[in-house]
Amino acid sequence: MQIAIVLYPGFTALDAIGPYEVLGRLPEADIVFVAENPGLILNDLGSLSVKVVHGFEEVPKPDIVLVGGGAGQAGQMADGVLHAWLRAVDSSATWMTSVCTGSLILAAAGVLAGRRATTHWGALEQLAEFGVTPSKERVVIDGHCATGAGVSAGIDMALTLAGLIAGDRVAQAVQLLIEYAPQPPYEAGSSDAASDEVYDALYGLVGPH
Amino acid sequence: MQIAIVLYPGFTALDAIGPYEVLGRLPEADIVFVAENPGLILNDLGSLSVKVVHGFEEVPKPDIVLVGGGAGQAGQMADGVLHAWLRAVDSSATWMTSVCTGSLILAAAGVLAGRRATTHWGALEQLAEFGVTPSKERVVIDGHCATGAGVSAGIDMALTLAGLIAGDRVAQAVQLLIEYAPQPPYEAGSSDAASDEVYDALYGLVGPH
Repeated sequence: MQIAIVLYPGFTALDAIGPYEVLGRLPEADIVFVAENPGLILNDLGSLSVKVVHGFEEVPKPDIVLVGGGAGQAGQMADGVLHAWLRAVDSSATWMTSVCTGSLILAAAGVLAGRRATTHWGALEQLAEFGVTPSKERVVIDGHCATGAGVSAGIDMALTLAGLIAGDRVAQAVQLLIEYAPQPPYEAGSSDAASDEVYDALYGLVGPH
Repeated sequence: MQIAIVLYPGFTALDAIGPYEVLGRLPEADIVFVAENPGLILNDLGSLSVKVVHGFEEVPKPDIVLVGGGAGQAGQMADGVLHAWLRAVDSSATWMTSVCTGSLILAAAGVLAGRRATTHWGALEQLAEFGVTPSKERVVIDGHCATGAGVSAGIDMALTLAGLIAGDRVAQAVQLLIEYAPQPPYEAGSSDAASDEVYDALYGLVGPH
């Protein structure tokens, strides 16, 4: 079971690593990081560098594809090598998946046309521009496409997918292994739950966009 | 605010990347990955290679230190360069932190002596061997030491720490940014909640140890 995780400059690390830690522990999982330009790929915070060995042409028939989001997502929206590869592997992959604004890339490539999908709460409206029905759910399964909401939602998406692939028992065993019994110290993680003061603090961190 | 994240061969990716994604988004955060032998460091699943530029001697006074766990933790328990560095930086660091079995490394180095701490559920008993009081809590703060339970607990530990460092509002803003409103599809993430069948499936994945 080959699982191809797409990286690009400016990726958000947790988008990729949350699902990696879940899916990579399934029986027979063979994870391959893949990039348009193999080499060291730097993330959006500018301090994590991941070595990617394989280009798209070396991964022609992955069983599962994962595309994460991040500040660099905007640079992956034009039709080109990545989009062509996504469309090509879509015809044979068992699952096409995304986390956060990775779904915008899948959508721009045409992979999500006519489907329901989710993304980071700040980007939901953009999905509709590509003929995709935005959903505020944390995990959306539509056909062979599985999308997760922002960043940390990739863990929930991957565990849901793990259950569909390997059965509930195995997915639960992975959950136990990574001790995923979350206890956030606050309840500010959803766009509905956060207060105006928290939004103000957020704009202070990342600007008004 | 320099945050040093220790990597070693066989680290668990999510142990490091969960807190990285939280702490790295705090104002003034300057993350540096550090290793005894800089270069490409391969994780426990054998498919993720992170480039580490700096050795311990180049990071003599970090404000925050994070040590994660993983299959490679067992190879970091002997006194040596890492332990000596941990003891040295402990005297000036604002926070010494760990995720999963990273606390066993802190404990073996003597940093947690006399304190309460947590670790992965499967390793709790081992903490006592180093004069540390094991706690089953998901996040333990004792003095300037913050420890998180297994793997995914690093996100909760880091958000708790973010609140103590930058205030509740900023920590909540980071939580909103990474959309951390978890919805696990199962309730199997704690060692108390998981059924015998799930433990059997876990042993099937990783063996009886």
